[in-house]
Amino acid sequence: MAGNTLGKTFKLTTFGESHGAAIGGVIDGCPAGVSIDIAAIQGELDRRRPGQSKITTQRKESDIVELLSGIFEGKSTGAPIGFIIRNKDAKSADYDHLKHAYRPSHADNTYDIKYGIRDHRGGGRASARETACRVVGGAVARQVLNYIGIRVWAFVSSVGSEILTTNYTALNPADVESNMVRCPDAAVADKMIALIDQIRKDGDTVGGVVTCVAQNVPAGLGEPVFDRLEADLAKAMLSINATKGFEIGSGFGATEMRGSQHNDQSDDTGNHTSNHAGGVQGGVTNGQDIYFNVAFKPVATLMQNQSGVDDQGNAVSVKGKGRHDPCVVPRAVPIVEAMTLLTLVDHFLRNRTSKIG
Amino acid sequence: MAGNTLGKTFKLTTFGESHGAAIGGVIDGCPAGVSIDIAAIQGELDRRRPGQSKITTQRKESDIVELLSGIFEGKSTGAPIGFIIRNKDAKSADYDHLKHAYRPSHADNTYDIKYGIRDHRGGGRASARETACRVVGGAVARQVLNYIGIRVWAFVSSVGSEILTTNYTALNPADVESNMVRCPDAAVADKMIALIDQIRKDGDTVGGVVTCVAQNVPAGLGEPVFDRLEADLAKAMLSINATKGFEIGSGFGATEMRGSQHNDQSDDTGNHTSNHAGGVQGGVTNGQDIYFNVAFKPVATLMQNQSGVDDQGNAVSVKGKGRHDPCVVPRAVPIVEAMTLLTLVDHFLRNRTSKIG
Amino acid sequence: MAGNTLGKTFKLTTFGESHGAAIGGVIDGCPAGVSIDIAAIQGELDRRRPGQSKITTQRKESDIVELLSGIFEGKSTGAPIGFIIRNKDAKSADYDHLKHAYRPSHADNTYDIKYGIRDHRGGGRASARETACRVVGGAVARQVLNYIGIRVWAFVSSVGSEILTTNYTALNPADVESNMVRCPDAAVADKMIALIDQIRKDGDTVGGVVTCVAQNVPAGLGEPVFDRLEADLAKAMLSINATKGFEIGSGFGATEMRGSQHNDQSDDTGNHTSNHAGGVQGGVTNGQDIYFNVAFKPVATLMQNQSGVDDQGNAVSVKGKGRHDPCVVPRAVPIVEAMTLLTLVDHFLRNRTSKIG
Amino acid sequence: MAGNTLGKTFKLTTFGESHGAAIGGVIDGCPAGVSIDIAAIQGELDRRRPGQSKITTQRKESDIVELLSGIFEGKSTGAPIGFIIRNKDAKSADYDHLKHAYRPSHADNTYDIKYGIRDHRGGGRASARETACRVVGGAVARQVLNYIGIRVWAFVSSVGSEILTTNYTALNPADVESNMVRCPDAAVADKMIALIDQIRKDGDTVGGVVTCVAQNVPAGLGEPVFDRLEADLAKAMLSINATKGFEIGSGFGATEMRGSQHNDQSDDTGNHTSNHAGGVQGGVTNGQDIYFNVAFKPVATLMQNQSGVDDQGNAVSVKGKGRHDPCVVPRAVPIVEAMTLLTLVDHFLRNRTSKIG
Repeated sequence: MAGNTLGKTFKLTTFGESHGAAIGGVIDGCPAGVSIDIAAIQGELDRRRPGQSKITTQRKESDIVELLSGIFEGKSTGAPIGFIIRNKDAKSADYDHLKHAYRPSHADNTYDIKYGIRDHRGGGRASARETACRVVGGAVARQVLNYIGIRVWAFVSSVGSEILTTNYTALNPADVESNMVRCPDAAVADKMIALIDQIRKDGDTVGGVVTCVAQNVPAGLGEPVFDRLEADLAKAMLSINATKGFEIGSGFGATEMRGSQHNDQSDDTGNHTSNHAGGVQGGVTNGQDIYFNVAFKPVATLMQNQSGVDDQGNAVSVKGKGRHDPCVVPRAVPIVEAMTLLTLVDHFLRNRTSKIG
Repeated sequence: MAGNTLGKTFKLTTFGESHGAAIGGVIDGCPAGVSIDIAAIQGELDRRRPGQSKITTQRKESDIVELLSGIFEGKSTGAPIGFIIRNKDAKSADYDHLKHAYRPSHADNTYDIKYGIRDHRGGGRASARETACRVVGGAVARQVLNYIGIRVWAFVSSVGSEILTTNYTALNPADVESNMVRCPDAAVADKMIALIDQIRKDGDTVGGVVTCVAQNVPAGLGEPVFDRLEADLAKAMLSINATKGFEIGSGFGATEMRGSQHNDQSDDTGNHTSNHAGGVQGGVTNGQDIYFNVAFKPVATLMQNQSGVDDQGNAVSVKGKGRHDPCVVPRAVPIVEAMTLLTLVDHFLRNRTSKIG
Repeated sequence: MAGNTLGKTFKLTTFGESHGAAIGGVIDGCPAGVSIDIAAIQGELDRRRPGQSKITTQRKESDIVELLSGIFEGKSTGAPIGFIIRNKDAKSADYDHLKHAYRPSHADNTYDIKYGIRDHRGGGRASARETACRVVGGAVARQVLNYIGIRVWAFVSSVGSEILTTNYTALNPADVESNMVRCPDAAVADKMIALIDQIRKDGDTVGGVVTCVAQNVPAGLGEPVFDRLEADLAKAMLSINATKGFEIGSGFGATEMRGSQHNDQSDDTGNHTSNHAGGVQGGVTNGQDIYFNVAFKPVATLMQNQSGVDDQGNAVSVKGKGRHDPCVVPRAVPIVEAMTLLTLVDHFLRNRTSKIG
Repeated sequence: MAGNTLGKTFKLTTFGESHGAAIGGVIDGCPAGVSIDIAAIQGELDRRRPGQSKITTQRKESDIVELLSGIFEGKSTGAPIGFIIRNKDAKSADYDHLKHAYRPSHADNTYDIKYGIRDHRGGGRASARETACRVVGGAVARQVLNYIGIRVWAFVSSVGSEILTTNYTALNPADVESNMVRCPDAAVADKMIALIDQIRKDGDTVGGVVTCVAQNVPAGLGEPVFDRLEADLAKAMLSINATKGFEIGSGFGATEMRGSQHNDQSDDTGNHTSNHAGGVQGGVTNGQDIYFNVAFKPVATLMQNQSGVDDQGNAVSVKGKGRHDPCVVPRAVPIVEAMTLLTLVDHFLRNRTSKIG
């Protein structure tokens, strides 16, 4: 039983391979009557697009989304929204040497075992190119959530050992897009960019952390006991290529704290004096900010020789060709936002049946 | 749309509140023909049971599971397995003072907002008592996975600042149950126990980390692109009460690594020389060990005064009564195992449709 | 992938075999705040109970439902409602001769092939006893739908060749329970009862039709294109034991009509002048009455010799022992109502996300 | 919660409106390694295409399907198969008069109530044009089921009062396509064609029955207790536009039979001597032929004046413009087949988890 659908009420199903004819998807469950701004959807997609700067892959994809259904006279109709993005700049020949070789730390081998067949061109279905469809879904989700004022924004909080230590509350969301690494602190961003540039020159790659914040989320979202909001956020994040970890609120830091420090107590007016919870109690939002970190490993494709195996079990030396990112985290920012938006809109709609009244 | 079912093929649905008549559940999708060892199921439940030692809650529940269906002459029949566990030692009067008061960092307030009504006795549905049903489900899952030799074991790897630094490969699973804190290193365990005991005397609580390992998992499990194995593991873990984080393989440490360090290369015989991946590539198992960490916050109920609010928005002082754990991580070990087993068995069955042949 | 759950938002999962310890289920997704009348639930169950009259099976089951969770101070809490019904009057010895013999037109053989194991006692999971759990679910659904005034009632409209030809609009729902065959026309009911009684004496059985009506259903329920209301009703009905057909509104009669006869036109005030549609247009309710027929085959267990096979493929003669219904349709009335209520409440809740406003 | 996905393991999600840019869909869960014959898929689509004969609509759509993903070197890869069909011959101006008028017995009014907005052009999402996507899905399903030799074929068994009384076992599947009405008896076909032609000239429409047969289906398919095979077939059929009824095996005829007539007994060699069941016992296939009837109402769009209402509640006279079928049943044949194939392939895959061995 395959798993290409996310969500239970607002559902995104995606399809497509890196070097196939097109990638695309279907959004089923978008409520009717939502004003759909197609330019804004394209704008989100442009943020994820390859070839934007010296620190990202040089693949040139215009990534124009075509919305095929579900919208009439500028509004959603309640019918499913189908969309496609044509693949244009696929250079499949760059992958001919990988038809039988398994790259270290890629999905080549596991896909072959699972399916017995593999589209090796550009990573096929396992390519992060698929996430463009998530960005489209997230952009529609954002337009739904605009109706209740939810704001979701993410930024790069670390690249390798270059770490932004400022709390998100002291940062300005408007600064995220002011530099190519998407770190809203100019000084730290410069260091990150220098690091990535150096690593790129080394033919190497590096990991990092994306921090995401959701504000003005109404209390009451999340479905005990299994579909807690943080559980669905964790799933959404770990479904993104190259992610290795998720922590919400106090996260792993909570493990070293005492309850008397960690509990979010109230002041005289009933307001919380802290937010270690990260906006969720018992799996349900409490109206405070949601914030969480997502860990990304270094990109696995390197411009240097690596020891792998081929599909006959023989040792082979593998080196990346083609166009790859030395650090995926800047381009992951809109993807993390999209997955957050998709999770929130699904729970926003799910919560409509929690009470009879 | 509620969320009390986990899994898509091997499905566990749970019900029940801390102080209601019973808790229980239904396992739907257990394949027919599995030998069911009822004593082994009870044995897993006994590991989670309260009142086992001085470092756990003193609530005395015998927690006897009654299996009501789906088993005939010692084997599963393919029909759903219904089960109940009666609540015996519920002392609801301990919670009378909480009918209108919201405890800091509990689900009291969020449940009231979400549902407009709340069973305040013992935390109601939000109580970790519900996890007993997950342990029953996990115990059945383990008996299915025994058919293919999968072994899942977990242990406490930190309590507050007391941290076990030994890699799991150097530990002996048989040592986990040798002490009350479930840390398979006697010296570290002693320090953890001393810490918990001191914190209990302070009327305080403390967090910690559970590490879980799954071995002999066949390659090929996990469903791209959304239901990756690590995504479903992350969800399963973050659905457990009091969890704040999840990391698999290299986890957050990966963010500071270079690709040339992180990639799991192969030796001359085609075997991996490292396992930073934690057993998954592209969301699909590769046959190596799966290992991951789960972060638990300190228990929110303290035996000291805390500032909260009541359901009228007034500030109130709240102090725990009744019987509570100063540190939840030792009792979380069988729960983490159960959620891992449930996730693996679901993917084991899902993978049966990946190929035509 | 098993199938013991009905519904997507208001979900009923059932478990249990005819001669096991208990049957039961879980209702997940009942909105919070619904007043739950437990006596009314028991009352619905009493309507389905065996041993009520000379024309039904003489198995004596008190069928007392125990509600275990999800209700607090008389109201639903939004948490899952677990329930069990203990099996009391199971006479498993009546089935010893069937351990290896397959009864004609029963599920004995197909279950053995599907699962490789079979609880032969009383039909096991394939017994219509399981439908008691559906009646419990339907009774809760009715209490939810009471909030919007929906009324669902069913009656026996034929037994063998004894057919009630009066349109439902000329019948009085209050008359359904006035006789043991549940036909709201006393004269026709007498003929039906006489027929069943004769057939029972012959050691034979007979089929019939149950007609169901749902009134005051709001317009807008049903989810194109696959989860049309009539599609989900059809599924619900064909999931009941012994059903062979379903028709809504004009049904099979529509196939012989012209569009100019069949179309439901409007009068000067905009009201429909007919209801061939049966209350649904394009899969969505239009506010008119929903009415449909369900065909039941004759009960397969006969008190006479029949030619079957055993599990070795040998021909065997099989004759019913124990206690069986000569005609299932009177007891099917509350089951058809329950399945209708479950389908309607699911769609009532699903429709809450159709619009943004 | 919308409903544009069919199936649980082999899942088809469709999108698109009659006069939008394109219709299309995603098949998720097709096993890897299936040889995909694209010409055969197009061939099935051509059978459903409008404009084929004088008894069908004159809309000229080439209906070329473009498969976008999930296939590599002629085989399915296990990745989702996305596809689109561009709309070419949409004449939206034919529908301008319907922007505010509700046609009798159409979905115009119910969609407006449900969604508050409606794409009125060509019926929008409610148009039977959407079923082209089901035919694509069914064609892929057929190629999967070819691996186990299942054969599914359907035919027109009645148009109005012209009824084919011959049992399917005496008909030749190869004769179905020998005439434009898809009735495999030439004499009856001629009468049906004459009837449709006359009705078309009258500006009227007529209903009919499609009979479908599935042969060589392995025993064991179907998932008790809710997802019985016949329940899912019933749902699939009632989800097709214009259907009003479903009956399997003996169907409504069973209601007038005695058990001693109806039971499918066995002969000396253990073979069934009849097949009143229609190939299913207890919701599970028994290896005998599956056969069932589907009732279609007359098409609602008439070339004559009808009394309807507009969106202000005023009475209006409505008459069809554009191109419509006087009788939908011939074109429904490939759709009924497709829905049957989709249901069978889903259950074929679901059954892979029924046993541990």
